[in-house]
Amino acid sequence: MTTAADEARSILTRLGVADGVWGGDLPTRSPIDGSSAGRLHEATPDQVQAVIARSATAFQAWRRVPAPRRGELVRLLGEELRASKADLARLVTLEAGKIVSEGLGEVQEMIEICDFAVGLSRQLYGLTLASERPGHHMRETWQPLGPVAVISAFNFPVAVWAWNAALALVCGDPVIWKPSEKTPLTALATQAVFERAAARFADAPPGLSQLLIGGKEIGEALAADPRVPLVSATGSTRMGRAVATAVAGRLGRSLLELGGNNAMIVTPSADLDMAVRAIAFSAVGTCGQRCTTLRRLLVHEDVAEGLIARLVAAYDTLPIGDPRQEGVLLGPLIDEAAVDGFETALAQAAEQGGQLLVGGTRVEGAVSYVRPAIVRMPAQTAVVEHETFAPILYVMTWSDFDAAVAMQNAVPQGLSSCVFTDSVREAEAFLSAWGSDCGIANVNIGPSGAEIGGAFGGEKETGGGRESGSDAWKAYMRRQTQTVNFSRDLPLAQGVRFEV
Amino acid sequence: MTTAADEARSILTRLGVADGVWGGDLPTRSPIDGSSAGRLHEATPDQVQAVIARSATAFQAWRRVPAPRRGELVRLLGEELRASKADLARLVTLEAGKIVSEGLGEVQEMIEICDFAVGLSRQLYGLTLASERPGHHMRETWQPLGPVAVISAFNFPVAVWAWNAALALVCGDPVIWKPSEKTPLTALATQAVFERAAARFADAPPGLSQLLIGGKEIGEALAADPRVPLVSATGSTRMGRAVATAVAGRLGRSLLELGGNNAMIVTPSADLDMAVRAIAFSAVGTCGQRCTTLRRLLVHEDVAEGLIARLVAAYDTLPIGDPRQEGVLLGPLIDEAAVDGFETALAQAAEQGGQLLVGGTRVEGAVSYVRPAIVRMPAQTAVVEHETFAPILYVMTWSDFDAAVAMQNAVPQGLSSCVFTDSVREAEAFLSAWGSDCGIANVNIGPSGAEIGGAFGGEKETGGGRESGSDAWKAYMRRQTQTVNFSRDLPLAQGVRFEV
Amino acid sequence: MTTAADEARSILTRLGVADGVWGGDLPTRSPIDGSSAGRLHEATPDQVQAVIARSATAFQAWRRVPAPRRGELVRLLGEELRASKADLARLVTLEAGKIVSEGLGEVQEMIEICDFAVGLSRQLYGLTLASERPGHHMRETWQPLGPVAVISAFNFPVAVWAWNAALALVCGDPVIWKPSEKTPLTALATQAVFERAAARFADAPPGLSQLLIGGKEIGEALAADPRVPLVSATGSTRMGRAVATAVAGRLGRSLLELGGNNAMIVTPSADLDMAVRAIAFSAVGTCGQRCTTLRRLLVHEDVAEGLIARLVAAYDTLPIGDPRQEGVLLGPLIDEAAVDGFETALAQAAEQGGQLLVGGTRVEGAVSYVRPAIVRMPAQTAVVEHETFAPILYVMTWSDFDAAVAMQNAVPQGLSSCVFTDSVREAEAFLSAWGSDCGIANVNIGPSGAEIGGAFGGEKETGGGRESGSDAWKAYMRRQTQTVNFSRDLPLAQGVRFEV
Amino acid sequence: MTTAADEARSILTRLGVADGVWGGDLPTRSPIDGSSAGRLHEATPDQVQAVIARSATAFQAWRRVPAPRRGELVRLLGEELRASKADLARLVTLEAGKIVSEGLGEVQEMIEICDFAVGLSRQLYGLTLASERPGHHMRETWQPLGPVAVISAFNFPVAVWAWNAALALVCGDPVIWKPSEKTPLTALATQAVFERAAARFADAPPGLSQLLIGGKEIGEALAADPRVPLVSATGSTRMGRAVATAVAGRLGRSLLELGGNNAMIVTPSADLDMAVRAIAFSAVGTCGQRCTTLRRLLVHEDVAEGLIARLVAAYDTLPIGDPRQEGVLLGPLIDEAAVDGFETALAQAAEQGGQLLVGGTRVEGAVSYVRPAIVRMPAQTAVVEHETFAPILYVMTWSDFDAAVAMQNAVPQGLSSCVFTDSVREAEAFLSAWGSDCGIANVNIGPSGAEIGGAFGGEKETGGGRESGSDAWKAYMRRQTQTVNFSRDLPLAQGVRFEV
Repeated sequence: MTTAADEARSILTRLGVADGVWGGDLPTRSPIDGSSAGRLHEATPDQVQAVIARSATAFQAWRRVPAPRRGELVRLLGEELRASKADLARLVTLEAGKIVSEGLGEVQEMIEICDFAVGLSRQLYGLTLASERPGHHMRETWQPLGPVAVISAFNFPVAVWAWNAALALVCGDPVIWKPSEKTPLTALATQAVFERAAARFADAPPGLSQLLIGGKEIGEALAADPRVPLVSATGSTRMGRAVATAVAGRLGRSLLELGGNNAMIVTPSADLDMAVRAIAFSAVGTCGQRCTTLRRLLVHEDVAEGLIARLVAAYDTLPIGDPRQEGVLLGPLIDEAAVDGFETALAQAAEQGGQLLVGGTRVEGAVSYVRPAIVRMPAQTAVVEHETFAPILYVMTWSDFDAAVAMQNAVPQGLSSCVFTDSVREAEAFLSAWGSDCGIANVNIGPSGAEIGGAFGGEKETGGGRESGSDAWKAYMRRQTQTVNFSRDLPLAQGVRFEV
Repeated sequence: MTTAADEARSILTRLGVADGVWGGDLPTRSPIDGSSAGRLHEATPDQVQAVIARSATAFQAWRRVPAPRRGELVRLLGEELRASKADLARLVTLEAGKIVSEGLGEVQEMIEICDFAVGLSRQLYGLTLASERPGHHMRETWQPLGPVAVISAFNFPVAVWAWNAALALVCGDPVIWKPSEKTPLTALATQAVFERAAARFADAPPGLSQLLIGGKEIGEALAADPRVPLVSATGSTRMGRAVATAVAGRLGRSLLELGGNNAMIVTPSADLDMAVRAIAFSAVGTCGQRCTTLRRLLVHEDVAEGLIARLVAAYDTLPIGDPRQEGVLLGPLIDEAAVDGFETALAQAAEQGGQLLVGGTRVEGAVSYVRPAIVRMPAQTAVVEHETFAPILYVMTWSDFDAAVAMQNAVPQGLSSCVFTDSVREAEAFLSAWGSDCGIANVNIGPSGAEIGGAFGGEKETGGGRESGSDAWKAYMRRQTQTVNFSRDLPLAQGVRFEV
Repeated sequence: MTTAADEARSILTRLGVADGVWGGDLPTRSPIDGSSAGRLHEATPDQVQAVIARSATAFQAWRRVPAPRRGELVRLLGEELRASKADLARLVTLEAGKIVSEGLGEVQEMIEICDFAVGLSRQLYGLTLASERPGHHMRETWQPLGPVAVISAFNFPVAVWAWNAALALVCGDPVIWKPSEKTPLTALATQAVFERAAARFADAPPGLSQLLIGGKEIGEALAADPRVPLVSATGSTRMGRAVATAVAGRLGRSLLELGGNNAMIVTPSADLDMAVRAIAFSAVGTCGQRCTTLRRLLVHEDVAEGLIARLVAAYDTLPIGDPRQEGVLLGPLIDEAAVDGFETALAQAAEQGGQLLVGGTRVEGAVSYVRPAIVRMPAQTAVVEHETFAPILYVMTWSDFDAAVAMQNAVPQGLSSCVFTDSVREAEAFLSAWGSDCGIANVNIGPSGAEIGGAFGGEKETGGGRESGSDAWKAYMRRQTQTVNFSRDLPLAQGVRFEV
Repeated sequence: MTTAADEARSILTRLGVADGVWGGDLPTRSPIDGSSAGRLHEATPDQVQAVIARSATAFQAWRRVPAPRRGELVRLLGEELRASKADLARLVTLEAGKIVSEGLGEVQEMIEICDFAVGLSRQLYGLTLASERPGHHMRETWQPLGPVAVISAFNFPVAVWAWNAALALVCGDPVIWKPSEKTPLTALATQAVFERAAARFADAPPGLSQLLIGGKEIGEALAADPRVPLVSATGSTRMGRAVATAVAGRLGRSLLELGGNNAMIVTPSADLDMAVRAIAFSAVGTCGQRCTTLRRLLVHEDVAEGLIARLVAAYDTLPIGDPRQEGVLLGPLIDEAAVDGFETALAQAAEQGGQLLVGGTRVEGAVSYVRPAIVRMPAQTAVVEHETFAPILYVMTWSDFDAAVAMQNAVPQGLSSCVFTDSVREAEAFLSAWGSDCGIANVNIGPSGAEIGGAFGGEKETGGGRESGSDAWKAYMRRQTQTVNFSRDLPLAQGVRFEV
């Protein structure tokens, strides 16, 4: 097999990424085999300023393009993504280490958000409202906001940009993208695909979507700049807190998608066949590196032993290896730091009373491959309350449903959650005001794998942002309450009298 | 006439405020005559903690009360406010110095938001959505959020609480109110009215709405506390920035209503009779101490001289004095610091080329009464870009409509804005994506005096929050995307395959 | 005990109904004891025409009153209904024979729809939409429609009017009410309450809400008249079909709430304690004369015997009698024709293989009191597919859930339906696209007793109308798509070119 | 030039229409040159029944396909329409006589509604609602409805189908199309394009979209059949009334788009350059055969003479002829009956005091070509109140704006309307509750040429239906109010007590 780096280089060339991107200081590396495609140029501080300025100028033009026309650009982007789906998905595999099916799924998600945004482009519905004053007309309009910075993480190296960009573009906002330093190649490829779409479209101003390759100082510059009214950041809680504070200091707007610590509650009436499959996918898919990865399994004590036994058996036979290979379900962790985190957490779990049931070791000789772990915990200890971005599943048991829900809620994060049950009472209690406190709550589905039609995001330390479907687009616009007086009188609201 | 303080004491007694509130260190003072009703107890840090803890406990119960039942409490609150309207309005006059009609208008606003919230209590609409997976049902539900802190300012001493509390209560959230140190008495009175409503309602847990009298360290404690998921703060940009940063640091949610610097554009086709009246009300109403006060008048050069002359004439005869008196349109500024701000700004304006056309002086012998000023400015200088909370109207002229809109937008604040014109082209351009950048945009109405049915708030340094009507209630809830699989299969979104 | 008629007369006097209503040809009669309060004047054809003309004139004024002001009238109506609740509820009992709690519940429903409509009065939300043309603004506004005719039935003699009137009034439409000939007294009383509210309100034009006492020729006149854009009719399918055809012939709009034939499916996981209570209330409440009355019970064969035995026992001890008496749960049928229908249906059921399990007989000596019947049917025969407006419950069994749903759907009516189950799979299948085909579908609730916050109505022969909550108000308004060109160009949609 | 018929045959072949369609009794004819492509088979009554039965079966499967999947079929249909745009547009020109740009515009409209529907396919939003009962969850879901019959007219031979089909398909409904007898060829071509899309899609059941070629007895069969819950009919008021009555008789649902009699009000502040262009396009485009054609011009007396003179001059030089030719703006009327209607109306107008200003004659020797007419009328006489489907523009003058609005409203139809003005007061009054009574109201745009994002349709004799954008999709679904009790109690709404 060719090295991942070689394969990546040839895809980049095919997608039209210019050779000029190479020759800088930023190393690239495939987690599959550690091969490097070379070093990339990073954006200098001056370049960052220039990019922001260009974006602000592009906004002046773009906000005047009617939204359905803006939607046409996004439709063309969807067409180009369909055309480049295989290449881009492969690059996701090569650079992020995802298995083939997940790489394809990620690009599919980009395509779907484009389709969705095209529909939105004729909506962006505000309201007309009933005014209390005669001869007055009142309405609420959503206006374009301005340049949107997108800070994305390695684990969804392209989809997160698409979620933001498809909506932002339709909403009238230019986009500035700072991808993870760990996955710049997929970003370059995506930018090339975007430019192909833009070239087919007459009304795209220069600088409509720009890319900034580099480190966290770029994110800091974007967070600090008042010309960037919205910063959409996906990543760790630590990063998100820094972004949020910087943006708040200038009274800007943040859209945060931060850490998750997602649980599944399994009740006695659960379909255990389905539960086993759902657990396996959501706990070890993407090698445990999804923000929605299942990390905590809360099982009713009556079904715990049987379920655990089946899980251990399933884990034992999971095919681990080069994610390009047919049948492999587990690729590598993103880098050695991730392996360190995996091992540290397992050590802490052991200290805190945990019993390792399966996995938990490196795959010898390989770059950063590990065997996913299941750890039985006596209680929800400190390590369990912390998000470790690696395939560790903590298992705890319960006997009272309300207590299980309370345990599910007793972590600082609030992204995704689920219950496996066939009981209406349990399911609806889980979905009630006193049920799960997460942004996502599923019944008989794992915590992972959201559809783009719903709003995606979570509460508490997850940061409160919402992307993708529903009315998530409103984050990319500003709301204006408009009242027109077409009478010859000047009545005041609330019956106030003031006659000069 | 009795002193304002004596009158206030007797109203407080009539409304049932306990005598125990007196005897502390916080001075009270009426701007009308400087009289003091006495000193109030301030909440100690321990009391603040206890209040927050009680609120968190109340939340556990309140979120389980069905929303239409919660609405019934708010309906009763509306009834009690109707019953106490005259007293509460009078107290607003006594403590904040508003004229009688404005005091009544402020309580009317409280009543109307209650009516509105009662209707909402059977709505709080989320969505059902079309799932891409067979045998799956997807929906989005808005859940109660938790304790809401309300930090309010002196200039709307009771309405701001009501805007927040009526929505928060219906949404399932307890409320903790920290009013301005300058207006604690109206807060105590409002709390008494609330308690009367709660006493008629079986399902209100203790601590559902609590009051914290005291200084800014209370606001800081609320902003810092993770048990308070939402902090709704109205006041200066400086205060808002501090709140926003503190809340962001714990990844909480802020709803900010900060400074405005509101302009009116007058075009040649404007109805000048209406414009004069609108300008007078919005520039000098509440003695220039509304966040939506008109501060900048941008007049087409062809109509400027005539309009200015009429304004100067109107200002010359404005009745200034004790706001309790029939016919008075201008009461006092809130305190001497406000007079200082008024005088300082006028001095700066003069330095920056401004020409004082009328007013601008203290009323001799009086406590903090001033004559409202009109200053003609050669350009939008630094003092014009700053919000001075006093009745100063800066006048500038223009010849090109697009340039006028650009001038309107060229300040850091983004609350309210308006145009007076009978031209469809000008009016709609003002309301377009390239028109006003404010949260509120009016045509042939001053910037001030919003209806409660619309969303209220602004952009840029105004802080981005929205209160009152439209879907402002969503800020008081958390959104949950829910998917129920009722099939026997476990399809993954985006067509991902993962078979263990 | 005084006669029902005497009691009714004294309530009418207390509510302010003028003595002049008496002296005509329309007999009144209480089903409780057959007593008559006298004969009422019926509207002549000329009077009907005059009423419609007055309504059309009232519309010209009313549509100009701002919706939140219109809401204030409805708020006052709610206040008056609260004040007269006991009297009006008692009159419902006297004239329609409902038990006390149901009479109170019906007036409560009137009050709640008023509260709801007050909230709506500041909403009546249309949309602003994204236009594809530069310099164009597009919006959708809901405008007042015109006079609304309300044709109501005896079984909800006042609530149906309130559902329609509260929404219609807020929407800007005058109302013309033709109540059932069987319940004119409650209509007169309601009209008096309305007039009390209107007298407190400055802006109500004469003829805003009018009453037409009389027979079906009045309904026919309303259905035929083009000045009445909307006819909202509640009653039998036969009546509804006639109204619909007449209104369609003039291209008007109908809102139909016609017959129901409502079923409950009981599955093995159902909570049978709850099911028994739900069945009893929904099958015999209002003596089986609700449009949402439970008429068909579809029980899984494994739980059928036990459930039936419990039902028979419960039926055996149901307290039947004068509905004014404490503890009575079953009052009379509305008249002798209803008893005939009851007996005829039971005879047909017997012919079609049905086995009478309990009840089914007249109460001796009483006016029109019957013992509610449970009939076990071998299949869903012709009599079961027909709505008999009396307390007959047909019981059938099943073994396959899909077949039970198919049986539930296999009648011409489509109003309400329910399932008792604790299985997520069954519950959600029942609520899915291939589940119940009714307008209302409940889980673990009987078919009867809707909340006013939801849309009420059904499909197929039930007529398709929706009243009460959600966006049912849209039926009372006309939608207008509005586009404003504020540019200097005249682009055509879809890129059409046409240059003269 | 080849005959229109020959050209049509070759396009049909290229699009894959089977030769078997030929050989029946239904003549086809191009209005361009009167040439006939042959005679088509008409559907027999048995075939109609079979088609309905197949549609009902298809519904059983289609409603189970998730809506976003259904949207994928519509996306493919959009792709196929893009691929066949030139051919299909040409066929529209050949069969309906539209100019090239209008033919392309009509297909573009099909494409855009597909894009829009794809977006909808992940929405179809219902509501979650706040229940008044503890432990209850309430929601409103929109469910697939069943087979939808589409009856379309000759003047939009393909777009009307697409408006209905794209929404119906996404909503889960099969479609049965009965096109005008005058335009069966474009229908056959469209069906072929649909089948190409369906062939690329795995989940389309047979009979998902079917075509019924033939006369009005087919429409009658569809209107009468209870298996067809929705009949969407576009055409004359006479036809619509018949459909509405038949469908109402079985308590089905109609969506009617019937006659228009659209006016423009021109005020003194109007931009007359724009008005002239807008009038010319909307009065003579499609040879006056749009339902939104401008038929009545209401001009302020001060600007009337000048405007009329410019219009007469523009009409004098309008290029009339074979619509395939570059530069031609007016093609033929659809047939000789249309010419008769044109001439009859002009004769009546003359009798009623009208003065012919320009046009009004046949083009000699040509098939059915006429010169569009402008007739000055002394008042809005009988002929003006009637919709004549031909290019006649009646001009009337006014001096009072309110009177002009009243004149605009004083016809039985209520489709489209517009005003040309730059006055905010006039524009907003026109859009207010007391302004235009039409479904469409434009400012500074002609009555014709709607965007697909808005709801399309009208009031009064126009029939009240709405198609295309906004929430027009709801007509294609049934609404279900769903309540789930997940508590252990059985509370009744409105506080009713009923304890067995």
